Amino acid sequence: MPRIALDAFGSDARPEPELAALALALDGGLDIDLVGDSEQLEARLPAGYGDRLRLIHAAAQIGMDESPARAVKSKPDASLNVAIRQLVAGEVEGVVSAGNSGAILASALLGLGRIPGVDRPAILTRFPHLDGNTVVLDAGANVECRPLNLVQFAVMGAVFAKLEHGCERPRVALLSNGSEPSKGTALTRASANLLTSHPSEQFEFIGYVEPGGLFEGQCDVAVTDGWTGNLVLKAAEGAMRIWLRVLDRAGPPALALAQTQTTLASLTEQLDPDAHGGAQLIGVDGTVIICHGAAGPRALYNALTLAQRSATRGLTHTLREAIAIHRPLFDAARSSRVPEPTS
Amino acid sequence: MPRIALDAFGSDARPEPELAALALALDGGLDIDLVGDSEQLEARLPAGYGDRLRLIHAAAQIGMDESPARAVKSKPDASLNVAIRQLVAGEVEGVVSAGNSGAILASALLGLGRIPGVDRPAILTRFPHLDGNTVVLDAGANVECRPLNLVQFAVMGAVFAKLEHGCERPRVALLSNGSEPSKGTALTRASANLLTSHPSEQFEFIGYVEPGGLFEGQCDVAVTDGWTGNLVLKAAEGAMRIWLRVLDRAGPPALALAQTQTTLASLTEQLDPDAHGGAQLIGVDGTVIICHGAAGPRALYNALTLAQRSATRGLTHTLREAIAIHRPLFDAARSSRVPEPTS
Repeated sequence: MPRIALDAFGSDARPEPELAALALALDGGLDIDLVGDSEQLEARLPAGYGDRLRLIHAAAQIGMDESPARAVKSKPDASLNVAIRQLVAGEVEGVVSAGNSGAILASALLGLGRIPGVDRPAILTRFPHLDGNTVVLDAGANVECRPLNLVQFAVMGAVFAKLEHGCERPRVALLSNGSEPSKGTALTRASANLLTSHPSEQFEFIGYVEPGGLFEGQCDVAVTDGWTGNLVLKAAEGAMRIWLRVLDRAGPPALALAQTQTTLASLTEQLDPDAHGGAQLIGVDGTVIICHGAAGPRALYNALTLAQRSATRGLTHTLREAIAIHRPLFDAARSSRVPEPTS
Repeated sequence: MPRIALDAFGSDARPEPELAALALALDGGLDIDLVGDSEQLEARLPAGYGDRLRLIHAAAQIGMDESPARAVKSKPDASLNVAIRQLVAGEVEGVVSAGNSGAILASALLGLGRIPGVDRPAILTRFPHLDGNTVVLDAGANVECRPLNLVQFAVMGAVFAKLEHGCERPRVALLSNGSEPSKGTALTRASANLLTSHPSEQFEFIGYVEPGGLFEGQCDVAVTDGWTGNLVLKAAEGAMRIWLRVLDRAGPPALALAQTQTTLASLTEQLDPDAHGGAQLIGVDGTVIICHGAAGPRALYNALTLAQRSATRGLTHTLREAIAIHRPLFDAARSSRVPEPTS
């Protein structure tokens, strides 16, 4: 059973949600390294789990408002950094943190580095549709991207969709403002040309999909830059949440109905950052899951199980192989130029 | 009472929705020029409205799959072009079409031109929140933008919010991936600097807002490029629509509830392109409303009333004045350079 490190001082309400998630995880059969200030944590640990629970001392914390890169470098004994070092040392096979996502990215890059051949890691998240999930990346790690980044996201997203969702040959699309090839931007068109001219055995490139298609299962993996992915995700979350508030305003019968409809509730949970299981930081050389700062115990627990599944299924190893296999695509992308916008 | 021209051959189901909207509009007291092939339309016109309804013959139509710019130029007698010419000639004070939005933009630019000082017109749409609407532009006219475009959208969006929503001094924000000034892209940061260093008496620039804030009324006007605006709009629509489908699956009681909750129903209608009143093409020198190709009679009717209000309230005239007043801002924007993305 792969052991997972949990950063005890990541979330906004640190360490309460992490301690509650720890209890759920131990009950659920997971082995955990809890990483944080032992003085604050020791008296609060659940007893009777023996070696399944280890407390790893880390004297410092990284604040939500600190400059991510600077904090990661200046605080080697921050709980996040110590958790990543546990992974580097092979003491654990995955890390979960609800800290500043920029800091998690910086710490993972510093400690683990990238999978050989990967230029930029991405944040991989999932959109629910009525019959499953659509993988979406990048959800915010890279505000500016070039075609090389997008085609690497395509390869990595396809590996995730196969391992986590069981898609034998995932349908990969580029997120766009229309389905016709003439739509999109210089970036999406260059990326589409690369994916079309270098077909992969591991996934099927199906062209463009509009954001509405994410909710209809039109593709298994949707690829975009971190700016667009982040805003599309936040727009969808906002639109989902307004319905809950409308139901709330509509009064007790509607609210009760909403709460008892399991489909509704699970959809809301999937898109609600307070309840979401976390996003995979994909492309770094190890399993790292980023949770929302407002994550509660259930979200952190879901993230721990996702980390454990990623480790058990060999996600990082499979990504290494996929990145190596697709080298001709990446070589072509490296020499691809995106025309300057005309204005 | 300002007269409005309705392109009878715009929508996907042309001319049926347009004819049904015409009946609603005449009942509602609007004066209409219906523009299209008189042979097809004449026998189907409602009688008894005298001069309030005029049939303007246009022999040709522009198809949804035609190249917009080419079709507009090669078919001077297309219903869309004839409707725009009615506006240029002063026969009507607004045009509504559910045709190809690229063609509407091209026809309006060719016939009306831009308001003096405006570099790029934008598509202005509205997001509902629980207590009103947020103006969002550009929703898709300009995939690539520079700071000059965004600051002009800010000025025009503020004029619209004041005239249409009664915001005395609209709060204008730039759509971004976080609220801190360090977030955003080179484009948004350059635009934010310009709006901060050139404060306007007509609106208050409040910095960045995330997409979720659109649904919470955090600003009156949200400004973005046409790529981001289009994808955010479509993501929100997709997320709204999945709830309807979940309620549908949940069975008759839930569906009945959804249909009877007026708040819910009106929110859905506002975000549903089939029911939406249309988007204002802002920045061209006259009142033009673009409807979704799937627009039904109610949406077209709402668009006709929006066109009539814009004309009555002098939107174009007020925009001209606002553009002239903000010239120092635009001059500064013209010399603003956006740094190249580093990658």
